[in-house]
Amino acid sequence: MNDIADTRHFRGTGQEETAQERWARFKPIATGEDYLNSLRGRKITCYLFGEKVQDPVDHPIIRPSMNALKATYDLTIADPDLASAHSPLINARVNRFLHIVESPQDLVMKNRMQRRMGQITGTCFQRCAGLDTISVLHSITYDIDAKHGTPYHQRYLDWLKLAQANNIIVGAGMTDPKGDRSKRPHEQADPDLFMHVTRRTEQGLYVRGAKAHMTGGLNSHWICVMPTMNLGEKDKDWAVVGMVPADAPGLTYIYGRQSCDTRALEQGSIDQGNAQFGGQETLVVFDDVFIPWEHVLMDGEYEFAQEMVTRFTAYHRASYVCKTGLGDVMVGAAAAVAEYNGADGASHVKDKLVEMTHLNETIYSSSIASSHEARQLPSGIFMNDAMLANVCKHNVTRFPYEIARLAQDLAGGLMVTLPSQSDFEHEIAGPLLEKYFKGRAEVPVEYRVRMLRLIENMTLGRNAVGYLTESMHGAGSPQAQRIQILRGMDVERKKDYARKLAAIPVKVVS
Amino acid sequence: MNDIADTRHFRGTGQEETAQERWARFKPIATGEDYLNSLRGRKITCYLFGEKVQDPVDHPIIRPSMNALKATYDLTIADPDLASAHSPLINARVNRFLHIVESPQDLVMKNRMQRRMGQITGTCFQRCAGLDTISVLHSITYDIDAKHGTPYHQRYLDWLKLAQANNIIVGAGMTDPKGDRSKRPHEQADPDLFMHVTRRTEQGLYVRGAKAHMTGGLNSHWICVMPTMNLGEKDKDWAVVGMVPADAPGLTYIYGRQSCDTRALEQGSIDQGNAQFGGQETLVVFDDVFIPWEHVLMDGEYEFAQEMVTRFTAYHRASYVCKTGLGDVMVGAAAAVAEYNGADGASHVKDKLVEMTHLNETIYSSSIASSHEARQLPSGIFMNDAMLANVCKHNVTRFPYEIARLAQDLAGGLMVTLPSQSDFEHEIAGPLLEKYFKGRAEVPVEYRVRMLRLIENMTLGRNAVGYLTESMHGAGSPQAQRIQILRGMDVERKKDYARKLAAIPVKVVS
Amino acid sequence: MNDIADTRHFRGTGQEETAQERWARFKPIATGEDYLNSLRGRKITCYLFGEKVQDPVDHPIIRPSMNALKATYDLTIADPDLASAHSPLINARVNRFLHIVESPQDLVMKNRMQRRMGQITGTCFQRCAGLDTISVLHSITYDIDAKHGTPYHQRYLDWLKLAQANNIIVGAGMTDPKGDRSKRPHEQADPDLFMHVTRRTEQGLYVRGAKAHMTGGLNSHWICVMPTMNLGEKDKDWAVVGMVPADAPGLTYIYGRQSCDTRALEQGSIDQGNAQFGGQETLVVFDDVFIPWEHVLMDGEYEFAQEMVTRFTAYHRASYVCKTGLGDVMVGAAAAVAEYNGADGASHVKDKLVEMTHLNETIYSSSIASSHEARQLPSGIFMNDAMLANVCKHNVTRFPYEIARLAQDLAGGLMVTLPSQSDFEHEIAGPLLEKYFKGRAEVPVEYRVRMLRLIENMTLGRNAVGYLTESMHGAGSPQAQRIQILRGMDVERKKDYARKLAAIPVKVVS
Amino acid sequence: MNDIADTRHFRGTGQEETAQERWARFKPIATGEDYLNSLRGRKITCYLFGEKVQDPVDHPIIRPSMNALKATYDLTIADPDLASAHSPLINARVNRFLHIVESPQDLVMKNRMQRRMGQITGTCFQRCAGLDTISVLHSITYDIDAKHGTPYHQRYLDWLKLAQANNIIVGAGMTDPKGDRSKRPHEQADPDLFMHVTRRTEQGLYVRGAKAHMTGGLNSHWICVMPTMNLGEKDKDWAVVGMVPADAPGLTYIYGRQSCDTRALEQGSIDQGNAQFGGQETLVVFDDVFIPWEHVLMDGEYEFAQEMVTRFTAYHRASYVCKTGLGDVMVGAAAAVAEYNGADGASHVKDKLVEMTHLNETIYSSSIASSHEARQLPSGIFMNDAMLANVCKHNVTRFPYEIARLAQDLAGGLMVTLPSQSDFEHEIAGPLLEKYFKGRAEVPVEYRVRMLRLIENMTLGRNAVGYLTESMHGAGSPQAQRIQILRGMDVERKKDYARKLAAIPVKVVS
Repeated sequence: MNDIADTRHFRGTGQEETAQERWARFKPIATGEDYLNSLRGRKITCYLFGEKVQDPVDHPIIRPSMNALKATYDLTIADPDLASAHSPLINARVNRFLHIVESPQDLVMKNRMQRRMGQITGTCFQRCAGLDTISVLHSITYDIDAKHGTPYHQRYLDWLKLAQANNIIVGAGMTDPKGDRSKRPHEQADPDLFMHVTRRTEQGLYVRGAKAHMTGGLNSHWICVMPTMNLGEKDKDWAVVGMVPADAPGLTYIYGRQSCDTRALEQGSIDQGNAQFGGQETLVVFDDVFIPWEHVLMDGEYEFAQEMVTRFTAYHRASYVCKTGLGDVMVGAAAAVAEYNGADGASHVKDKLVEMTHLNETIYSSSIASSHEARQLPSGIFMNDAMLANVCKHNVTRFPYEIARLAQDLAGGLMVTLPSQSDFEHEIAGPLLEKYFKGRAEVPVEYRVRMLRLIENMTLGRNAVGYLTESMHGAGSPQAQRIQILRGMDVERKKDYARKLAAIPVKVVS
Repeated sequence: MNDIADTRHFRGTGQEETAQERWARFKPIATGEDYLNSLRGRKITCYLFGEKVQDPVDHPIIRPSMNALKATYDLTIADPDLASAHSPLINARVNRFLHIVESPQDLVMKNRMQRRMGQITGTCFQRCAGLDTISVLHSITYDIDAKHGTPYHQRYLDWLKLAQANNIIVGAGMTDPKGDRSKRPHEQADPDLFMHVTRRTEQGLYVRGAKAHMTGGLNSHWICVMPTMNLGEKDKDWAVVGMVPADAPGLTYIYGRQSCDTRALEQGSIDQGNAQFGGQETLVVFDDVFIPWEHVLMDGEYEFAQEMVTRFTAYHRASYVCKTGLGDVMVGAAAAVAEYNGADGASHVKDKLVEMTHLNETIYSSSIASSHEARQLPSGIFMNDAMLANVCKHNVTRFPYEIARLAQDLAGGLMVTLPSQSDFEHEIAGPLLEKYFKGRAEVPVEYRVRMLRLIENMTLGRNAVGYLTESMHGAGSPQAQRIQILRGMDVERKKDYARKLAAIPVKVVS
Repeated sequence: MNDIADTRHFRGTGQEETAQERWARFKPIATGEDYLNSLRGRKITCYLFGEKVQDPVDHPIIRPSMNALKATYDLTIADPDLASAHSPLINARVNRFLHIVESPQDLVMKNRMQRRMGQITGTCFQRCAGLDTISVLHSITYDIDAKHGTPYHQRYLDWLKLAQANNIIVGAGMTDPKGDRSKRPHEQADPDLFMHVTRRTEQGLYVRGAKAHMTGGLNSHWICVMPTMNLGEKDKDWAVVGMVPADAPGLTYIYGRQSCDTRALEQGSIDQGNAQFGGQETLVVFDDVFIPWEHVLMDGEYEFAQEMVTRFTAYHRASYVCKTGLGDVMVGAAAAVAEYNGADGASHVKDKLVEMTHLNETIYSSSIASSHEARQLPSGIFMNDAMLANVCKHNVTRFPYEIARLAQDLAGGLMVTLPSQSDFEHEIAGPLLEKYFKGRAEVPVEYRVRMLRLIENMTLGRNAVGYLTESMHGAGSPQAQRIQILRGMDVERKKDYARKLAAIPVKVVS
Repeated sequence: MNDIADTRHFRGTGQEETAQERWARFKPIATGEDYLNSLRGRKITCYLFGEKVQDPVDHPIIRPSMNALKATYDLTIADPDLASAHSPLINARVNRFLHIVESPQDLVMKNRMQRRMGQITGTCFQRCAGLDTISVLHSITYDIDAKHGTPYHQRYLDWLKLAQANNIIVGAGMTDPKGDRSKRPHEQADPDLFMHVTRRTEQGLYVRGAKAHMTGGLNSHWICVMPTMNLGEKDKDWAVVGMVPADAPGLTYIYGRQSCDTRALEQGSIDQGNAQFGGQETLVVFDDVFIPWEHVLMDGEYEFAQEMVTRFTAYHRASYVCKTGLGDVMVGAAAAVAEYNGADGASHVKDKLVEMTHLNETIYSSSIASSHEARQLPSGIFMNDAMLANVCKHNVTRFPYEIARLAQDLAGGLMVTLPSQSDFEHEIAGPLLEKYFKGRAEVPVEYRVRMLRLIENMTLGRNAVGYLTESMHGAGSPQAQRIQILRGMDVERKKDYARKLAAIPVKVVS
């Protein structure tokens, strides 16, 4: 079908796994503990610090990122109304991260759950992109079928039922490496810089390429690969959507490092700031990975790529409401440090906490409003308002930075001059530090240190990746939102309002 | 009952109007034209530029403010779904500005109508405070009755039915002059600096004082007087709520002037920028004005004053979503001027329009979100979320200024160096101006002038009062919102999130 | 020399004024009163509100703008060190607005004088552009002569000596109307949209066109016409610089209107806010105006147009330090109102005053720094640093808007709801206003009103033109500064710093 | 003299080092290499990660901070005009970091050198506080002597001559731990929470306490201890200034950790971002450290403490101009990454670089202006303008955060998802990374990684401490500047300007 395919050596042997075999490896996950266990013993190739990781679940750098996902299971038990919903697909209560959006209120509940998860973990809990992928595929597969008579929507529903029943985590494999940005996928010197189909057989197709910045990639059970931008006719082989188990043959994970990541390897947990939770970004390489037809949801319908991305960003940019949960932690941590320093009564301190809250709630507003203004798509699913979702995300590229700045202001300089936990535990240095870092009488020095390390963690350290840089670039960099706002702002209608008030009878510029 | 009353000369003669007589003067208003007619021939004392105004309706400075209110009637006809609702009270469709909030969606519809009205008028249309007054009185009268066994709620409902049936405009008389701000009402050298009861008879009571910054005061049919802040036991006589017809004996209006107001007196309408619509602020003096008991909704229940103000601001701060309608006009006007100047293709121009839109939609978000998060009060009415309403208004104290700055940027300096319309019409000067102010070939110079004058109107002129200064101070100045945000931010809960993540086991500062 | 000239009817009769005759009309101006007298009885055609102005000096709208210039004379007497300097050209002390920049310190003294003038007048005092024109012509005429052997520099010096001796005001006629901005001067449908030479005789040359946004045009004694942007070879006839007396035949002034300008026509001065001082913008039309060769300083040397503009903007953008003088007034007015309201002790009030001051001094910094970093040009004159001058002006396009916003915050809503002075003087309304607008006991209501009107004047009214919109567009709109910053930022040098630190050995992208 | 002294066990034995002995350990440092050698073999107690550091010079975490100081020596050789000056004290050229400020231009040269050092090192080079200490002691010792007849100024000059001759580094020991911030030094439960004199002998005095956040403490040759805030009469024993060699008996250093500090311990240098240079913060504990009288510059003159701090902050807040050097690196790095990504032509990219530059030069302005406006103190030294220095520093607490945010924007998300250097060097993972991280053809992947790691280093990593948090808190936290701006803003004079313009004849509020 295309020539590229034939010039390659293929991993495929004709003995590829069937869709059934792939699902057979799973059993329903009920608890967070089940989740951790589900990640053990998988045959996965993952590199971290130049070494193959043997057991990701027990790796001290990786584990906190799994804990964050674990919390999405635990929350379902602790607060089922918030974190689960009834799925008519399987007529059972399912984790809200696997639930189909049946109403605007479902989107609002999603936002609330995301904020709550941010409060609980103080980091990126990595499950939103998968949820938003599920949402967008519902309508896109439906729309493709309507045009092309393809069977994608039913395949999607079949897959989703099993996903819900097994309560799995799906990761969103969207961002291709892109190579030379001035060139289209089919024009790249190396065709693999965008993921594409390399062969098609009776059983399925094979994809090659890589997905970068894959949030929680290694922590997922399934990965959905999908195009990252609009495609043209010549990019047909790049127009592919499919579901792949995270342990499928041909996958390689290379773990991204984060600021202060190795503190997790040190003795003692204080200097980590947030020892329990962290984020995860991986590069996932697909070396002719097989996808059975049952799990193929797009193959060549390039003209739907742009709309798929647009809908995905509408869902996903509003998901950045999660950062308000982290913002709540920032407000709390800054307030606590001010209290420990004995400065909580100062008017400028209160004023800064108010400003942080104001900015944080402004973000929250746009997400909730976007959900409230949702409209129903032909497939029956609801999609939140795209303009307000872009506005939400655009504020997320600004306000967390200002909140972090204010938190550093309230934290004081000690945050970056504190000695290590080992020094605090040293027989000579320790007592000196206890003596000289004593502030308010009733506050143990260790508490002050812990709170400062948490702020460091979120503004400079490991979770600053999630709170700041990911806020900037996740779900699209600021300029991407500005382009969407430009497209959606309907300036002609607004000119018309102005003309009416200025009593200008006609439009003179076409 | 109190001594102050007896030391005064009273207007009251024992021949005061009854509640029935007061309502008898009204007949149902259906159209905007009906509304204007309803304002004609009233016996009202109003001063403007040191003179008693004979016929406000035809006064060129006053009329634009009435036109803005007129548009609230016209919109009901043009877009009934948006601007009217079914009232179970009278089992009829009523203007949404008189409708009781029966659901969060009612609040959302209110917000949409407010934005639309802003787009249509480009100014303050003066009817929101009245609506928000109606809303707050529903629950407050109910709550007072529940505690004190008073009959306020039924009186309120009776009044409201007639208000709905007659489709009248009610103004919110809230802001007292306040005098020395370090003193409580009863401590003021002049007790009238806060409105208070001066006498009580069998028929009703008398109030004395003034209400400042009364938006659209002169354009209302009824005025609701109510306390402006929390009151103590000694302020009992100041704890009064009542409904007064705008033409009741004892009322005096003194008209506030606005930037460029007298342009409306000049020949030609171009220099007004927005010749059709304007706002209105008045000082309304109450010189022992009678209120029959049927229209008294609070009398001495001082402990409800603060809660009434708090609920009122929750409703009213979200009403500032109206400014997004004006923001739409600003975006449109700036885009149109850029187009007339031939600069609309420049990337920095598009970027500024995007920024204006982004800020505008951010305001919109908070209002919609606040409405969506509404909760029901004991009286059955819904109230929007107070935190998000404060956030909404707080952004309104900032973003319109930035939007106006960007609009001035895109307008170019000509906006403030343009000669007058008379010069454009002068036989010698006119052709010179036509010649030298010619820009893009297809754009008449007059259109360019008109659009610039509109931007001047909204950023420096008459409607800058509504778009900027009122955005700052209406419904409470910025610091008022910050105090509410401080109160509502629940910092203890947020400290708890931080402590959990920092693994600090206990709270050590009480 | 060019064909355009011959197809026109010329005003010129061969009996044109000589350079000597033109100077003969002047006599040295010593005091501000002399200045006002020097403007009386001139044969000048000026239109305002569709009428020919008979005596500009006594026109209530125009006079405040002349008062502002008058203050530049008065200051020389009140503070000679600040506002005058020794001129070696005529070996006498001259007004600093006519002084050649002999050192960086001269530039610093200019900045200080500009700030002081802003404090004194609270408006644009209209004399900076003329000073900056004198400065740029010193070096540009020198440089043209060096290349072309022309006699411009000596002509310039001769003119300047007389200007200094007579202590005249020179206006900067720079901004052409520009017409279709996508076309060069010679490409315009109407060649007059940029000022150009229409004929040359033995005595001199004739110019036709117009200068827009001419600050203080009518208040000047001489106008310097000069190109507004870079020119090409085909624009040679548009490359003209010359000195023209403000009352030369062929000139027509059309007065630009400003927000609230007609308040100066009302009885009473309170509502003007700043009754004494105002700015002025005019369109000045040149209908074949003669310039004797002695006053021609460029004629066809088109390649110097861009450099002339660049140097002019370097000088002039730093001159916007004057706005810090207005900023001082804003801080003072806001502080005074807060005091009158009894709110001056509140921490948020103090904090806002600090912020206003901080922003104001930030602007001041860039101007002083730009002056300090001045370098000497071949002609011997000093020019301030262009990057820092652009940075100064760019902050001026932002910070005054924020200062104005904060001033409105501190002023309170009363600023835009105050009735007119006539109402305060009315026998019935007046006492009511006195009663109800009483704040702090020791503060007369009138003082409170006056201070609020001053803030209105500077943020919405007549002097908002100078404090806000002119801050945006004067000396070039924001984007013009960004282009200059882009050009001057030397990004290659900065990349080199980064490469060294990142240990990247070579530059790989050319 | 005070009782505290007698209740302690003293380190002092009567065999303390003399001033001469202390200086005898030094020999003149000429080169950066000399400097490093001067730090070897010192008997210093320093803890880092719970261990005593044996050889700080060769410790991979410490060395980069020494390299930064080394560069202050190297620059003197590379650019002597910039980095050295003639000292009349020893009639020789000395490092500018040891030079007495003889003119405003000396301060400007200091600023330029600081910016240059920032460009060279991309971090805090730790020598400014020492220079500013030298500056403030010149005038303060002079002023104390003038009042008290003490011999401090001559002692100071004697010490400084040797410091200049030996070209040593002096650290500023200013910030006491402060304990309970609501209590004065003498009121603290533990008197050592502020450094104080514990005993006085014929030879000298002994101090006890600690200095926190000591920038470059371990890298200094001498430490100047001095009070951190205003003191009262009962705090007399806390009013002590003295010069102490960094290796004096009784000193203990505890090294502060920084974000990503341990990357310096990893194999390979790429992930450090800036492997060569870093900052240093230490807690320095003084356990009854002896200071001979020759090196005591204040002892009990508590009333000078506040003025000393005020002058120090005037000098030191303008020293934060160094951050513009780091800002230059940020601009360069962001521009380089954009170039490597092939995005350097996009208008929004250029616009962001312009904004970064604009903010950076705004900071620069205030520093230069502050220096230019310097005035001479009685001792003959010049001090820069305090208002503008505070304004400079206050902008430093804001703009670097925004510059960093914009740099992260331009960097793209890859900055926080990049795998480690070891992965790039791994035989399997490495080629995959090379393949998929390939961007623009001519740019090696390694260069892209290096540039991203540099931005990470400065915005999240080790040098984010210097570029961000130290910008916030060094030389005083934001609120400290606001207090100084409040004190210096002379609001009464500004009210007077406003009153004049508003025609208010008298001041009515006292």
